[in-house]
Amino acid sequence: MSGENSPLPCPTTTHRLTEELMECGRDFHRRGWSLGTSSNYSAVLGREPLTLLMTGSGFDKGRLQPDQFVVVNEQAQAVQAGSPKPSAEALLHTVLARHGAGAVLHTHSVAATVLSEHFLKDGGLRIAGYEMLKGLTGITTHEAEAWIEIFPNTQNIASLAEVIAERLKDIAQPLRHGFLMAGHGLYTWGADLAAARRQVEVLEFLFEVVTQKRLLFGSF
Amino acid sequence: MSGENSPLPCPTTTHRLTEELMECGRDFHRRGWSLGTSSNYSAVLGREPLTLLMTGSGFDKGRLQPDQFVVVNEQAQAVQAGSPKPSAEALLHTVLARHGAGAVLHTHSVAATVLSEHFLKDGGLRIAGYEMLKGLTGITTHEAEAWIEIFPNTQNIASLAEVIAERLKDIAQPLRHGFLMAGHGLYTWGADLAAARRQVEVLEFLFEVVTQKRLLFGSF
Amino acid sequence: MSGENSPLPCPTTTHRLTEELMECGRDFHRRGWSLGTSSNYSAVLGREPLTLLMTGSGFDKGRLQPDQFVVVNEQAQAVQAGSPKPSAEALLHTVLARHGAGAVLHTHSVAATVLSEHFLKDGGLRIAGYEMLKGLTGITTHEAEAWIEIFPNTQNIASLAEVIAERLKDIAQPLRHGFLMAGHGLYTWGADLAAARRQVEVLEFLFEVVTQKRLLFGSF
Amino acid sequence: MSGENSPLPCPTTTHRLTEELMECGRDFHRRGWSLGTSSNYSAVLGREPLTLLMTGSGFDKGRLQPDQFVVVNEQAQAVQAGSPKPSAEALLHTVLARHGAGAVLHTHSVAATVLSEHFLKDGGLRIAGYEMLKGLTGITTHEAEAWIEIFPNTQNIASLAEVIAERLKDIAQPLRHGFLMAGHGLYTWGADLAAARRQVEVLEFLFEVVTQKRLLFGSF
Repeated sequence: MSGENSPLPCPTTTHRLTEELMECGRDFHRRGWSLGTSSNYSAVLGREPLTLLMTGSGFDKGRLQPDQFVVVNEQAQAVQAGSPKPSAEALLHTVLARHGAGAVLHTHSVAATVLSEHFLKDGGLRIAGYEMLKGLTGITTHEAEAWIEIFPNTQNIASLAEVIAERLKDIAQPLRHGFLMAGHGLYTWGADLAAARRQVEVLEFLFEVVTQKRLLFGSF
Repeated sequence: MSGENSPLPCPTTTHRLTEELMECGRDFHRRGWSLGTSSNYSAVLGREPLTLLMTGSGFDKGRLQPDQFVVVNEQAQAVQAGSPKPSAEALLHTVLARHGAGAVLHTHSVAATVLSEHFLKDGGLRIAGYEMLKGLTGITTHEAEAWIEIFPNTQNIASLAEVIAERLKDIAQPLRHGFLMAGHGLYTWGADLAAARRQVEVLEFLFEVVTQKRLLFGSF
Repeated sequence: MSGENSPLPCPTTTHRLTEELMECGRDFHRRGWSLGTSSNYSAVLGREPLTLLMTGSGFDKGRLQPDQFVVVNEQAQAVQAGSPKPSAEALLHTVLARHGAGAVLHTHSVAATVLSEHFLKDGGLRIAGYEMLKGLTGITTHEAEAWIEIFPNTQNIASLAEVIAERLKDIAQPLRHGFLMAGHGLYTWGADLAAARRQVEVLEFLFEVVTQKRLLFGSF
Repeated sequence: MSGENSPLPCPTTTHRLTEELMECGRDFHRRGWSLGTSSNYSAVLGREPLTLLMTGSGFDKGRLQPDQFVVVNEQAQAVQAGSPKPSAEALLHTVLARHGAGAVLHTHSVAATVLSEHFLKDGGLRIAGYEMLKGLTGITTHEAEAWIEIFPNTQNIASLAEVIAERLKDIAQPLRHGFLMAGHGLYTWGADLAAARRQVEVLEFLFEVVTQKRLLFGSF
């Protein structure tokens, strides 16, 4: 298991990222964004070859333990025997990591679930004009808009992973910031885990803003 | 008190489950699902004969202490003198445990209270199409639906326990996932305490989704 | 200061109640029921003569310190020189304590503020049919109703205290459970601090239920 | 760096205020008022010349570290080499500090974002008749009103700082309590950090009250 194609990652880095992902899980679970063993999180351990530290399938995100993580390779397969099973959605993480993400976070909030179900017919959700948009990587003024694309939910993750890989490479209108799966939740990413957490917080905040605006004033 | 029909449960197991139920109470109380001494929780200690560790009646679930639990037998009676009084609803726990549940959790959330009062006329609440449904035991795709049956609230728990026992054995359409008592709250269960907590989190999340969808778009 | 009419209270009791009131403040502040130095809490230290341990005026309830409490007599005056100033509302606490309350809690939640402002015209808020009502002292079935009386807000606390004292003695329809001051908040009480906390949690839960029911279904 | 015009602040005071601002950040982040590296906070260290301790730009407010603060002078420039970069909005803090504020807190809540966007057309938000208003500096009765002025959002902070400086000096109707930037968030201040935190809590509570009143009863 320690050959050229799947070297063991640095124990110090693995330990630090495990601690950070556990803390991230406690916070997201407390906020109701990762209830009932939903969600999965990952962070890149190395790139030559690509390895990711990822939450195993089916664990309570509010009380993650070190032995509930799995190291996966570019094909989203566990590189060490005896690891927990990777999530069925691990392929989405590896696609995003290959594209450059240093960490990928997938969450299930009430607002993301309801908005993504409703706006699937439009293919996405446009959010514009808020200062908080500046928290998204690459946005430097509130006079901006984010288009959060929405994909139909599916249990065929391999197929969705191919669609996402294509959309990431779309030169005309590349997938940015994150995406929603309808009635399911949010995927977002960043250069590192802190950046990915910032993306989650900003997008969840904006989903709440859109929701509250509609409730108060009847429009989006 | 240590005869063949009511052996004392293993102290280690009792201690571990007491700790876990205390932690569960702190979390549910913080989330507003177990306020004002409402709710009761149990976990199976042994099956030959059936014994359950259960919260005593009338304690603050956010600050449970080890001496606020009671061990009950299949008839929902305390097996040790000097124990706290079992909850009036203990019979519902033993009915569910006899049917195979390893842990039973009963909670009182705002969403469950309001939805169960309103949908009593329909006999239940149908929730379909959400990824989070996969968190319920036995569901493996979002293309599923959960029918959460609603019973009229009653102070005659013995009578309701008989109804529930019958419904659990209904071959055509067995009671699954959990049930609501109108204007009262949720009962759900799992193979063990972690599974039952997952059921609570998933169902409470889905009650919030149903509520938010109605508020935003006027339909369920 | 240690004469027959104002004996110093037992240090152990004072210490324990101080700790419990500090913990109560942390929880209520976290929940948003005691923000911005609003709210005041008290617990009876002795009855011959009546002395109460009470939060001083103007302190952050989320971070109460032992030196931010004051012991007051039946006239709501500090019994020890150098104490913090009692709240302007201390007279309401002593009226309730004279009537038998062992602890009095006053909170300012969003739901209580909005509902009390709106229903002042009706003189109160009727809440009926919910299991959670059983958490209120003296209620043993969900087939009950609580009438939470609403008084106009005032800065003349002495005058309101007289009104409350009369209403508590009203034989035909005595003031029970608690009362609201319009656009201001809730007063409730119990035999001891745990009972008063339970009253707060139950009433705040029910205010949320009433609010959510109206938002979802357009009626109270 | 320790000449007459920029003396190093007292280490004890700096340490204490750093701890307090870190704690403030943890609480505001938990409440959702400072998500995604939004917000900035400051406290005055000295007045001859004016120096402020301020959060550096772009840090997670829920997990602030001592090395993520910067000491700035009256021109909002770092007084020590190697400090984190001051926020682009530091000039608003120094304008308010020059006017007498001992601490300035800027937060981004959902309610402030949505209300400020909607009421920009009216130039402000009027809040009247609530007991909680008494938590604002200078208000002593609920029979009061607060006018919270709303400014268009801008990335030209220098220009907005001039507008604010003028409005603070307006004899007829001076800027009081705080102000909103449309679609952005709240600025408020106090004689010290505790007073500024109280202002944030009171104003955020009142924004929630206004929101809830509108949702329930259709009017503000």
